[in-house]
Amino acid sequence: MDPSEVTVPPLKNLTIDNITDNVKLINSQCPNPRMKYILERIVQHLHDFARETRLSHDEWMTGLLFLTSVGQICTDVRQEFILLSDILGLSLLVDSIDHPKPPQSTEGTVLGPFHSHEAEVAPNGSIIAHDPDGEPCLVLCDIKDTDGKPISDVKIDIWETDSKGFYDVQYAGREGPDQRAVMHSDKEGVFWFKAIVPVPYPIPHDGPVGKLLVQLKRHCYRPSHMHFMFEKKGYDHLITALYLRGDPYETSDAVFGVKDSLLIDLGTVDAEQAKKYDVKEGSKLITYKFVLVTEDESSKLREKNAMAAMEAQGRKMKFWNGLPIPEQD
Amino acid sequence: MDPSEVTVPPLKNLTIDNITDNVKLINSQCPNPRMKYILERIVQHLHDFARETRLSHDEWMTGLLFLTSVGQICTDVRQEFILLSDILGLSLLVDSIDHPKPPQSTEGTVLGPFHSHEAEVAPNGSIIAHDPDGEPCLVLCDIKDTDGKPISDVKIDIWETDSKGFYDVQYAGREGPDQRAVMHSDKEGVFWFKAIVPVPYPIPHDGPVGKLLVQLKRHCYRPSHMHFMFEKKGYDHLITALYLRGDPYETSDAVFGVKDSLLIDLGTVDAEQAKKYDVKEGSKLITYKFVLVTEDESSKLREKNAMAAMEAQGRKMKFWNGLPIPEQD
Repeated sequence: MDPSEVTVPPLKNLTIDNITDNVKLINSQCPNPRMKYILERIVQHLHDFARETRLSHDEWMTGLLFLTSVGQICTDVRQEFILLSDILGLSLLVDSIDHPKPPQSTEGTVLGPFHSHEAEVAPNGSIIAHDPDGEPCLVLCDIKDTDGKPISDVKIDIWETDSKGFYDVQYAGREGPDQRAVMHSDKEGVFWFKAIVPVPYPIPHDGPVGKLLVQLKRHCYRPSHMHFMFEKKGYDHLITALYLRGDPYETSDAVFGVKDSLLIDLGTVDAEQAKKYDVKEGSKLITYKFVLVTEDESSKLREKNAMAAMEAQGRKMKFWNGLPIPEQD
Repeated sequence: MDPSEVTVPPLKNLTIDNITDNVKLINSQCPNPRMKYILERIVQHLHDFARETRLSHDEWMTGLLFLTSVGQICTDVRQEFILLSDILGLSLLVDSIDHPKPPQSTEGTVLGPFHSHEAEVAPNGSIIAHDPDGEPCLVLCDIKDTDGKPISDVKIDIWETDSKGFYDVQYAGREGPDQRAVMHSDKEGVFWFKAIVPVPYPIPHDGPVGKLLVQLKRHCYRPSHMHFMFEKKGYDHLITALYLRGDPYETSDAVFGVKDSLLIDLGTVDAEQAKKYDVKEGSKLITYKFVLVTEDESSKLREKNAMAAMEAQGRKMKFWNGLPIPEQD
């Protein structure tokens, strides 16, 4: 850009007190109003944080080197920034904001860093976990809408760890996906499969996020759970998980994902079920009735919540592509 | 950590409204009170940012992938997170907070990502820049304290780009340091050397920070400048730079570093100087009188500023290793 094309007033002699407004000013040239608003809030919070804490140069450098190490440990199958977001509660917060759920529907929870796009499509009844040391578990679920009507042909992503608490992608020498599948609900909204009983496991703690948890005297465990992700046109994307009630980490999940409505009691397969689903009588059983919200219900609730939050801020806002931006600049 | 050792109340059913306090609560186990305070403020600002903007899942992911790419482009000689901090005005802010300067002393400015520890010690009069295309420039400086007394034996780090606007570390095949040196002031507080006239240059813009600037419609140029860093026991560390007045980017520095007190007019070497310093008459000249602050002056001013900021926040604070922490938890 030719300096003569710079349209903001001169930026010079910036101080603790005037730098924030000036950085916002130069960023205000951004043509995308949503990005402009997001940058404005990032700059305000980042600067307020530094001013409030009187952040020292050494602390600033420690922070930047920490973020660098978080970025550098990321690979195709490891996302340490998601993990950082998870342990700071940001992931759960963003899911709650973006996917608000009416009371009668299934609540969402954290995605976590281990969803992959490698899972194979499996028909109802498939064995999706092949760890011989895992305790077999029959999983019987159905999906309804908020009026109680079954929803067919929902795409369901399912993933869990093996019996040692590791996802397939955590093994360097893995041959292919395991403990994960993509299924589709049938006409009655039913999907069912054979997996293993989830176990508690530590989130990856050999990297910078694990070291941070140690410094904070926090443990790195997640309670036993199985992940589910639901997609169907017209319905709000649902990322959730089922948690085993009574797990030792039930009330101290390292990533804040547990909700009462997502806690399940591990059941036992009876004789009739054993015959019907071709599994051993007495083996473990998970059942759950998922309730999806339509996109329309969800976006209305999202806008309503956003409006209330904007009003509380006392700033005049409007919506742009469904997301708030300031009414005028 | 055994789950029975977890001492915080149960964390479950976290929502948009209660997650922040709960994340702060679990982090409050951190034994380092300063780190605890910093994390508390990070969590508060991060969550407030998401709530205020109603951050969407897609935007959250875009942000995490952006930070990942910033981390991944970093090398031993490239620090993209410093660059990101620079273009967001955070670097200048942190320097202003950590190194407050009384009016009569030399102001600080951004360190930038190109300081290296490779520079060789050079005696007064050394040629520190060897680019044959650079315009030779004699640099005559002295260092005094706020009472006007010369300060001897100050360690001075000096670095600038070559005539093409690149630092030595930006060349893959470089043989050793150039356009940089470590000097020491003599008994009269004087240090002088032969360098080249600084030129404007783009900050590295082939990475994620450069792409961000494009999206914000900001240019990536810094006005012509030469970096200086001063260290001597008993004196506050001074990171600063001298800027050429009239540079086309003087009022739109991509990293907000320019201050009136650091602007200089390029002079011309007269006959006497040419003889004395063994340079051509009529060649370019930079002169500057630096004024250092004692550590004592600086820390008193820093604490005074911090106190005022804390009072404005309405929170009762105390100092811990010279930095504020909450009075009680």
